[in-house]
Amino acid sequence: MWNNFNKFLKYVQENDLTVDGAMTDPKGDRGLSPSKQADGDLYLRVVERREDGVVVRGAKCHQTGMLNSHEVVVMPTIALTPNDKDWAISFAVPTDAEGIIHIYGRQSCDTRKLEPGADIDLGNAEFGGQETLTIFDNVFVPNERIFLNGETDFAGMIVERFAGYHRQSYGGCKVGVGDVLIGAAAVAADYNGAHKASHVKDKLIEMTHLNETLFSCGIACSAMGSKTEAGNYYIDNLLANVCKQNVTRFPYEICRLAEDIAGGIMVTMPSEADFKDEKIGPYIDKYLRGVNSVSTENRMRILRLIENICLGTAAVGYRTESMHGAGSPQAQRIMIARQGNLAAKKKIAKKIARIEE
Amino acid sequence: MWNNFNKFLKYVQENDLTVDGAMTDPKGDRGLSPSKQADGDLYLRVVERREDGVVVRGAKCHQTGMLNSHEVVVMPTIALTPNDKDWAISFAVPTDAEGIIHIYGRQSCDTRKLEPGADIDLGNAEFGGQETLTIFDNVFVPNERIFLNGETDFAGMIVERFAGYHRQSYGGCKVGVGDVLIGAAAVAADYNGAHKASHVKDKLIEMTHLNETLFSCGIACSAMGSKTEAGNYYIDNLLANVCKQNVTRFPYEICRLAEDIAGGIMVTMPSEADFKDEKIGPYIDKYLRGVNSVSTENRMRILRLIENICLGTAAVGYRTESMHGAGSPQAQRIMIARQGNLAAKKKIAKKIARIEE
Amino acid sequence: MWNNFNKFLKYVQENDLTVDGAMTDPKGDRGLSPSKQADGDLYLRVVERREDGVVVRGAKCHQTGMLNSHEVVVMPTIALTPNDKDWAISFAVPTDAEGIIHIYGRQSCDTRKLEPGADIDLGNAEFGGQETLTIFDNVFVPNERIFLNGETDFAGMIVERFAGYHRQSYGGCKVGVGDVLIGAAAVAADYNGAHKASHVKDKLIEMTHLNETLFSCGIACSAMGSKTEAGNYYIDNLLANVCKQNVTRFPYEICRLAEDIAGGIMVTMPSEADFKDEKIGPYIDKYLRGVNSVSTENRMRILRLIENICLGTAAVGYRTESMHGAGSPQAQRIMIARQGNLAAKKKIAKKIARIEE
Amino acid sequence: MWNNFNKFLKYVQENDLTVDGAMTDPKGDRGLSPSKQADGDLYLRVVERREDGVVVRGAKCHQTGMLNSHEVVVMPTIALTPNDKDWAISFAVPTDAEGIIHIYGRQSCDTRKLEPGADIDLGNAEFGGQETLTIFDNVFVPNERIFLNGETDFAGMIVERFAGYHRQSYGGCKVGVGDVLIGAAAVAADYNGAHKASHVKDKLIEMTHLNETLFSCGIACSAMGSKTEAGNYYIDNLLANVCKQNVTRFPYEICRLAEDIAGGIMVTMPSEADFKDEKIGPYIDKYLRGVNSVSTENRMRILRLIENICLGTAAVGYRTESMHGAGSPQAQRIMIARQGNLAAKKKIAKKIARIEE
Repeated sequence: MWNNFNKFLKYVQENDLTVDGAMTDPKGDRGLSPSKQADGDLYLRVVERREDGVVVRGAKCHQTGMLNSHEVVVMPTIALTPNDKDWAISFAVPTDAEGIIHIYGRQSCDTRKLEPGADIDLGNAEFGGQETLTIFDNVFVPNERIFLNGETDFAGMIVERFAGYHRQSYGGCKVGVGDVLIGAAAVAADYNGAHKASHVKDKLIEMTHLNETLFSCGIACSAMGSKTEAGNYYIDNLLANVCKQNVTRFPYEICRLAEDIAGGIMVTMPSEADFKDEKIGPYIDKYLRGVNSVSTENRMRILRLIENICLGTAAVGYRTESMHGAGSPQAQRIMIARQGNLAAKKKIAKKIARIEE
Repeated sequence: MWNNFNKFLKYVQENDLTVDGAMTDPKGDRGLSPSKQADGDLYLRVVERREDGVVVRGAKCHQTGMLNSHEVVVMPTIALTPNDKDWAISFAVPTDAEGIIHIYGRQSCDTRKLEPGADIDLGNAEFGGQETLTIFDNVFVPNERIFLNGETDFAGMIVERFAGYHRQSYGGCKVGVGDVLIGAAAVAADYNGAHKASHVKDKLIEMTHLNETLFSCGIACSAMGSKTEAGNYYIDNLLANVCKQNVTRFPYEICRLAEDIAGGIMVTMPSEADFKDEKIGPYIDKYLRGVNSVSTENRMRILRLIENICLGTAAVGYRTESMHGAGSPQAQRIMIARQGNLAAKKKIAKKIARIEE
Repeated sequence: MWNNFNKFLKYVQENDLTVDGAMTDPKGDRGLSPSKQADGDLYLRVVERREDGVVVRGAKCHQTGMLNSHEVVVMPTIALTPNDKDWAISFAVPTDAEGIIHIYGRQSCDTRKLEPGADIDLGNAEFGGQETLTIFDNVFVPNERIFLNGETDFAGMIVERFAGYHRQSYGGCKVGVGDVLIGAAAVAADYNGAHKASHVKDKLIEMTHLNETLFSCGIACSAMGSKTEAGNYYIDNLLANVCKQNVTRFPYEICRLAEDIAGGIMVTMPSEADFKDEKIGPYIDKYLRGVNSVSTENRMRILRLIENICLGTAAVGYRTESMHGAGSPQAQRIMIARQGNLAAKKKIAKKIARIEE
Repeated sequence: MWNNFNKFLKYVQENDLTVDGAMTDPKGDRGLSPSKQADGDLYLRVVERREDGVVVRGAKCHQTGMLNSHEVVVMPTIALTPNDKDWAISFAVPTDAEGIIHIYGRQSCDTRKLEPGADIDLGNAEFGGQETLTIFDNVFVPNERIFLNGETDFAGMIVERFAGYHRQSYGGCKVGVGDVLIGAAAVAADYNGAHKASHVKDKLIEMTHLNETLFSCGIACSAMGSKTEAGNYYIDNLLANVCKQNVTRFPYEICRLAEDIAGGIMVTMPSEADFKDEKIGPYIDKYLRGVNSVSTENRMRILRLIENICLGTAAVGYRTESMHGAGSPQAQRIMIARQGNLAAKKKIAKKIARIEE
């Protein structure tokens, strides 16, 4: 089956395809293992075994990017016991394979994109992501696309490895969004004449400091990585978890500082429609103009961008997905405890304190 | 004119009217005083003086509750110099007086309220606020409704007093919303079976601790208040600013903890429309059900409420308005510096250190 | 026995005596109750019952102020089961009663007080506290001095009540020390010419803000208190625990900011002895002089005061005792959970979300 | 003069010498440049120029490790103007060169090392550092040991480069101390039976997370470094400042958590002398014993180690020197502002918001 994977990998690379990695099951009762769930589909599983492949049923949640992917690689989401053989399944199928249903997830402010002529109120008109709840309703998977089939022992390692790489990536991904938010906050300060105030400069420094700390964590877990037997490089697992843990904190504070700099107007501004209205518009233009000849429109544009990242469609990714993507905070804390080598630290402390036992 | 105010106060009390306190001007270039602004209307001012009253022009921003108020009391928003006589104006008029235009402010997720049959996706269907940008387009104010007219010396005190009371009130207002969010997070934890995990219990404790700290600050600035010559009680100004300063921080952390407990599903869930769809609905119901027979609908309801307070229409008030209402963070820091009595503290330090100068 | 207490209270008041409240036992294995401990003395207990009184044996830890008290009131430190009757004992004896041994606790920098001619290096020469480990080695307690004797049901309430008042007091006690530290940091900034830098002013504001938040919490739990049946006023227990919880955090940050403002010199300065040395002193005086004719001696004095509160003898009380006095952080969190009325909050959240169960 | 430096470097390497880098001047009035100071010696300078070298006068503060170094390299501490030629001086001399006087700095708890038979109370008996105020009282420096002489243009770069490397190093140095403190706190928890409590485990995880974040920052500024023209590698300056900025925060929190876990006993324990006393000792041994047969002596040893790092001699380095070494927090914030490339961030924000100017 590793041969299956290599073939699939080559296929994807040669055809320059986008692949979604689908791990998170709905999970049902988090206190029960898959085979003990009231509904066995709450963790995706094999429901029928044929000669030429298997049929699977289940769902994968929070699938960011599923809709702009060609293929999906499905993996188990937790470590498994020998009782869970049907859940120890990993495979790849095209995202439009028969039996697959993508149910689009709502985002804060999503329908602004559907408002006629929407432009200013979008804030961030060109970029974004979307999540799906992807249903696998008796989907057939041919043998050559199967990568794991019943080997329950390996499920935990797949989760740990995938999570490790995913936790590393946040030191790049969220940092990029942070850069945009820092820039937007600075522009907003320029536009209302507050950019020279020392407290505003200091908040921009703080945002930069926090953002670069996240970047440092992403770099560090990469730089301290090592080559696996298979030939690919794996990150330092402890530092990748430290990276992700910080990502569950700092974007929230970076948002708070951005809202501080932007001012209350970011959430009380009139709509683009009113701004463009013949009668009402001139009042808005007169009163919400920026300083130094900055147009009201440009001031509104930058404030809508900040609103988008802090509360709107991009806040979904920048805040809540920073919290939960690649595992919720407690998951990293468990890994940090496991990898933190407390025994060695206790030993050196005892040595320095001259404790003999 | 204090007689005018007393008459107005009696009128309001006897008729049980709701009054909006309108202070915040658009301000234009924050580095310039009103009389130096490119457009003198950027701070509301008198533009014509008649025998029976004055005509004013300007605007007031971020007016929460304006649309559900009968009357509006207008006040200057900064301390004024003798050059600013026309801006030293305070008065009350009905909110539908001629020349007044209320321009409704957009909020995150506002249009969900307009979606046909919207119920679950609203999260918080019954309660909310709204802000306006209220234009005063040559509004006539009769003499008997004028409370301040040219006495520039008093503007600063009005701002300080009004801000003081307003900063006190956040120790009640935002704490109430916090209570709802804490309850909602606890319900969400019950619904996904995570409520027994010690880290979840600890996060609920932390949210409670932060919320009660805000409440304590509201109580303290009230309990340490004192009676003014006029007979009304004024809060302790230092402690009211401390109260508000904490309100610019803790709701953000309370939201972050709520998002941690709620899970990523709060921002990736399908819509109510899909949930109610004949074909798609059963899949959503099957996979997003809560534990212990909690219905999918109820699970969605509580998650939408959390989404509403953390990112949606209520986030406008709970987060960004907590940041800026009654003055942005820097405003409180300036007041804390003024009231902090640093001279007395330096004196006792020198005494203890036996410093003689 | 409540009559015994009232008599004792009158005696203390009429004679203006100082009384130490001794609660904390050594506790041994924190996982075991008193009657299960390897050594039953690890919680103070009755070891002999006579007609005219009892004989007790045990110890009380961390007794701040014991050595400047006339009397000591001893109380149990945890809730007790019916098996623990001998440990359900509360009484008062003079601090020099026969069988009592006070073992003085070490403090950071304690021996500076013994250095000949010590003055500048003490920083804080006149004020301080000290802790003892007080041994009760078969101490006889006459009947009239006994307040609780075997009524295990009341132990938990005594602990909760005593802790409640003690947690309230920190909103005054530690705030006073905080005031001194804020003043000392401000003086240090004056002395090295940094007082005008906006970041220094901002740090002093932050220290003040945190300190006044602690004060607000002390005021609030008092203002929200109520009269008991006995006639004395009891604090609001939830808010007293919130007060103490903040005291386990903010003094540490106030110290950190003080160290930031004071500069590295506070921990690298030469000794008073070298400063007074004929040969070496002139160099120290030349190089460590303050600005604006501030003498080197005065500069050293204020830095030693800051060192004393942040690392020295006063740090014992300002930091570590802020952490553990009246119960460690986890103890308050348990009380906040109990008092937080989560059920009511869940109820209002469900109501707002229109959840019917 | 670069040739001088290379010769010196070779000499040091071939003889395996330890070199102190001396940068920090007393600075006097921080608002004035060196040539404007009341006393021109407040920044080390050339006072006499001879044919074979120069004579310098001044002092260097906070010199950690000076006393265990063979040589000292002296550098200017700030950027210089053309008026400051005499202060643009950098050189190396042996630490016992004529005219050099080292004045030992006091540390918290320093005299414990002088107490007869001191062992347990030292906590950390074998390791430590010490700081000096090193006076250069008309010290002659031969030409071949001079590296900078009047080229004021280069002073700022020397400071920036030296500070850069020094800020990087904290991601290793302080992390090592952090490891010891984490280990000590874990041992203390084992010794008092609290190690299984989930809140204790969580605090150890938090300490580890913060410590590894510092490590990540040290790794990142190194990994993102680049080769200079001279052939040596220089760190990424922005990330090195981010590293140091975090080091001014996290050790304080790591200490606070250690004090939380250790318990109040760490600052109220009797002395070693009393513990070893024939009469008093048995009481201490009986009551302060650890659980699971952990001896009282070992329990005291680990608590004294924690006390040493949090308040004692090692706290000088772990806390206050973490704050100020290699530049105080504000210095890093200025560098982060300079390097943060705000212009590029504003540009991408405007692009995304579709702002045209």
